[in-house]
Amino acid sequence: MFRHPSDPTRYLMSRSLAPILVTASDIMEYDLDSNPIDPQGRRSVIERFIHGEIYKLRPDVKAVIHSHSPAVVPFGITQVPMRPVIHVASFLWVGVPVWDSRDVADPASAAMLVRNAALGRSLALRLSDKPVALMRGHGNVVVGPDVQMAVRYAIYTEVNARLQAAAIAIGGPINYISAEEGAARDKGERDFARAWELWKRKALGR
Amino acid sequence: MFRHPSDPTRYLMSRSLAPILVTASDIMEYDLDSNPIDPQGRRSVIERFIHGEIYKLRPDVKAVIHSHSPAVVPFGITQVPMRPVIHVASFLWVGVPVWDSRDVADPASAAMLVRNAALGRSLALRLSDKPVALMRGHGNVVVGPDVQMAVRYAIYTEVNARLQAAAIAIGGPINYISAEEGAARDKGERDFARAWELWKRKALGR
Amino acid sequence: MFRHPSDPTRYLMSRSLAPILVTASDIMEYDLDSNPIDPQGRRSVIERFIHGEIYKLRPDVKAVIHSHSPAVVPFGITQVPMRPVIHVASFLWVGVPVWDSRDVADPASAAMLVRNAALGRSLALRLSDKPVALMRGHGNVVVGPDVQMAVRYAIYTEVNARLQAAAIAIGGPINYISAEEGAARDKGERDFARAWELWKRKALGR
Amino acid sequence: MFRHPSDPTRYLMSRSLAPILVTASDIMEYDLDSNPIDPQGRRSVIERFIHGEIYKLRPDVKAVIHSHSPAVVPFGITQVPMRPVIHVASFLWVGVPVWDSRDVADPASAAMLVRNAALGRSLALRLSDKPVALMRGHGNVVVGPDVQMAVRYAIYTEVNARLQAAAIAIGGPINYISAEEGAARDKGERDFARAWELWKRKALGR
Repeated sequence: MFRHPSDPTRYLMSRSLAPILVTASDIMEYDLDSNPIDPQGRRSVIERFIHGEIYKLRPDVKAVIHSHSPAVVPFGITQVPMRPVIHVASFLWVGVPVWDSRDVADPASAAMLVRNAALGRSLALRLSDKPVALMRGHGNVVVGPDVQMAVRYAIYTEVNARLQAAAIAIGGPINYISAEEGAARDKGERDFARAWELWKRKALGR
Repeated sequence: MFRHPSDPTRYLMSRSLAPILVTASDIMEYDLDSNPIDPQGRRSVIERFIHGEIYKLRPDVKAVIHSHSPAVVPFGITQVPMRPVIHVASFLWVGVPVWDSRDVADPASAAMLVRNAALGRSLALRLSDKPVALMRGHGNVVVGPDVQMAVRYAIYTEVNARLQAAAIAIGGPINYISAEEGAARDKGERDFARAWELWKRKALGR
Repeated sequence: MFRHPSDPTRYLMSRSLAPILVTASDIMEYDLDSNPIDPQGRRSVIERFIHGEIYKLRPDVKAVIHSHSPAVVPFGITQVPMRPVIHVASFLWVGVPVWDSRDVADPASAAMLVRNAALGRSLALRLSDKPVALMRGHGNVVVGPDVQMAVRYAIYTEVNARLQAAAIAIGGPINYISAEEGAARDKGERDFARAWELWKRKALGR
Repeated sequence: MFRHPSDPTRYLMSRSLAPILVTASDIMEYDLDSNPIDPQGRRSVIERFIHGEIYKLRPDVKAVIHSHSPAVVPFGITQVPMRPVIHVASFLWVGVPVWDSRDVADPASAAMLVRNAALGRSLALRLSDKPVALMRGHGNVVVGPDVQMAVRYAIYTEVNARLQAAAIAIGGPINYISAEEGAARDKGERDFARAWELWKRKALGR
């Protein structure tokens, strides 16, 4: 889930396990081709190639989150582009590409899982320099310069999807965050300590 | 709720009780005509014929789940067919038939409950060889080759219903899972241990 | 909230207090004109006239529930009639009248609260012989032959509202429960012990 | 979050911290230009100018709540005006203005935060004499003559947004609370003890 803090050619990720159950001994180390370094019999996540291929193409990325964010998935199967409607999701102003596994000429693509390097690379190329990409009929991938930013992007992408869908249901033209606003906010200070404390408490069930 | 592990002409099911309250002594045994073998004064579920008649017609089925899955019910009362929109529900690619008790020429059908063998058989025939059928104005029935798969199908049918409805509300043409993808995934490996552990924890309230 | 078990000219109702906080000593007794019998300084619910006037006009009613059921309120402010879409709410087949306080020529009606007998009587007349009436811009009232049935009607009215709204959002003609089905089910046996046990557990926070 | 009880030229507000974590020692004091009186190293909320500028222009206001109320935000980005649909939100009958930071000729406005007095004053002017204003792509601000009323307005504004959106989704013309009803209810007695007790319990997690 994040790049190795001292070796940028490695990344760290839990073995195949529901996130809420993960403890320290479940964390495995991979090279950027997504080979486990010392598996010790632990089962790797099939779709780890999402992570490895993005770390390869994006030196700026230190953390990758893949999820089936429930309000986000519908935007990956309609033709309505996801665009930012609330200030905390202004980072989406650069656009949210949709990757479709069907577009990859790989025999494995019909199973819709990113189970090899070719599929991972195709997704990483579609993500390009953006923070978020949708995966048609599957979920999304979110990247950041550190774990806190990636978590923040992932949470606010879900929030934005809910709000954008609600605004569409209410009807009429929508007043999206502008490119000028998005760019201004990208340059702003980054103080998310307040929200981070709260998310940590929730994740830990306190 | 599942076929007897050693006698395929029998099935096991809780007495009439809210699922969260069921303990081992509530489990009753039935023959495929849905007669209780040894009731011991326990009250049978009226709609057990759903189960018995499906076990009769579908030797491949080892587990049957009947529920009023909240996001699924609306698809049983509209003319919009349920189709898979997310990879984990790709098993729906074979189609999701809708059974309507009104179509059964049985005096009991007006009460909308599957309270006899004739109604159960009609539903089983409508289900045919599919994993899921909707029951108009009532709920749905989900079957599987074992309890884990049936639970998985039931949960992801609900997830798919929520996502498909959300995509319809957002608008425009929807990019459904294709038949080719559905078939490819049906042949894929079946490793659901990760999700299963989580569902079990939730069901047990841990 | 229910008619006095031994004196049909009296009803019992909690003093003005959030339902979750009510204990035995909060229960007050009223005559059918909604005068408290022995207030002991306890504050009466302003809208108790809803209850008194219904008990007066409907000898068959032993329990009255007034709530702001969240999925139901929208049906009271649109012109789309609430109709049953799921078997457990088939009792709605007789129709769900909407009462509008604005139609009552009483100076108090502008405040939208049923704060006197005239407003209560108007609502009771609009309810007529039905189990449920909506109150425009306010909530709904549900009645039953006993507390269990009234609670059941109230819960399933909310469930039905959610499902009907979801079906409308999916689109296309809706396959409502028919009058024949509603009438057949009204005559059916009444075994709600299973659901009742569960609701009680939830209400008690167990 | 509220005006100083004995000095109307001061207001009190928590340091920058998730609300659920706030304790007494986190409360800071500000003058109406939003300068902290005795910061003791505590970090001020950036958007405190929302509060200071409203207290300056509105002597009647003793409490200000700024939030990202989830059902309310969509009404700030569509052209559909928020209007009251349920009696408990009748106070919205006076209209709900939408403030857009883009309309303010201030270099800081592109970042969409109310981070100086000019932006705060612009918002306060848009709020005018109303209880609620929406902030486009951001959230809303709610004011009241005391903390209880402001909390009540904030909660019911969210409730109203959910109900209005649901009614729009069901379709057809909506029967809004009228000006006459809103005005009549504004003059009514103010007894919210019942709801207040419940909200306090929830906020304290009891």
